[in-house]
Amino acid sequence: MTQESPRKRRAGVLLFERFETLDACGPMEMFGTLPGDFELLTVARESGPVASVHGVRVYADYGFADCPPLDILLVPGGIGSRKELKDPAVLDWLRAQYAAVELMTSVCTGALLLAAAGILDGKRATSNKRVFDEALALSGKVMWIRHARWVEDGNLVTSSGVSAGMDMALAVIERLLGSEKAEFVAQNAEYLWNRDPDNDPFA
Amino acid sequence: MTQESPRKRRAGVLLFERFETLDACGPMEMFGTLPGDFELLTVARESGPVASVHGVRVYADYGFADCPPLDILLVPGGIGSRKELKDPAVLDWLRAQYAAVELMTSVCTGALLLAAAGILDGKRATSNKRVFDEALALSGKVMWIRHARWVEDGNLVTSSGVSAGMDMALAVIERLLGSEKAEFVAQNAEYLWNRDPDNDPFA
Repeated sequence: MTQESPRKRRAGVLLFERFETLDACGPMEMFGTLPGDFELLTVARESGPVASVHGVRVYADYGFADCPPLDILLVPGGIGSRKELKDPAVLDWLRAQYAAVELMTSVCTGALLLAAAGILDGKRATSNKRVFDEALALSGKVMWIRHARWVEDGNLVTSSGVSAGMDMALAVIERLLGSEKAEFVAQNAEYLWNRDPDNDPFA
Repeated sequence: MTQESPRKRRAGVLLFERFETLDACGPMEMFGTLPGDFELLTVARESGPVASVHGVRVYADYGFADCPPLDILLVPGGIGSRKELKDPAVLDWLRAQYAAVELMTSVCTGALLLAAAGILDGKRATSNKRVFDEALALSGKVMWIRHARWVEDGNLVTSSGVSAGMDMALAVIERLLGSEKAEFVAQNAEYLWNRDPDNDPFA
């Protein structure tokens, strides 16, 4: 068995107007704690400041046009995702990313964007508890899992609402780099990691 | 007993270069979920983008000079706090804020900044577990509490590391607006709220 040489993965976080602050920033804390393993960047339709639903302006490092190749893409949710759902440029970009990344991940209603792009067709996925009717209406081809903190189906990892994104990010770190690194990150953030994807008290 | 008329509180979050991403963004998610109760803003020495230790650039809405009066100030931690400790302009600004705010709050090593400003003299406070020796060296006048998720002493509320800031923010919301609102916020974020300040598995 040959040991894979370690490589730094580029993790991109999508931003759009009125994204949910913690959907994006929680996982960024987790991936960002391992700068030797992850190069963290933000990307939006155009580079520049993007306001979350709470008015927190986070700067997008890249636009769709100049974003370097990603290994991981994280799609946050938030009320602003409703507008993005109808934007063919966003859905096209997501499809192109999915064809190229190692892992496609989403938090909360970010899964609705992936569903609208057809990326979740035939796949198991989850989302925010309060949007399941909307999710079902959006795509009957997705096997939506109601009771789950996060769901892994191949290279797709979708989490339920907001804070679940941090548990998912730690699970992704564990999957890619082992439990020791994930535990280090959780400990560093003094984060009470819910390690069980089926432990979903909000279902 | 007269019922207080509800008022909107202005909650400011201090930013400085190399702040810890989640120290600032976790509580912003919590306060930001109640836009009828809190006006959320960010403030730094100068307005404009401020990079977290993870390279996440968050835009400071105001500089020290033009920041409107605050009801709550939240001071995050992060490796960048070490530089701020030695900046008289920052310590002076913190002291002036403390004289004016209803609540002064900190997350993680943000408490070291408050200690350096003398704000914690004679008070009970906590901080990140790994900096207690540094905290003790910085100020022997503070009653540092090692085992605590957060500590309230009058109008000072200090939390321990990173994620503890979210538990503290919810406790502040409960203190100011009642448990129903705090539970709503936690539920909305699907956040597993640690409601017990003495429940500190990282001590």
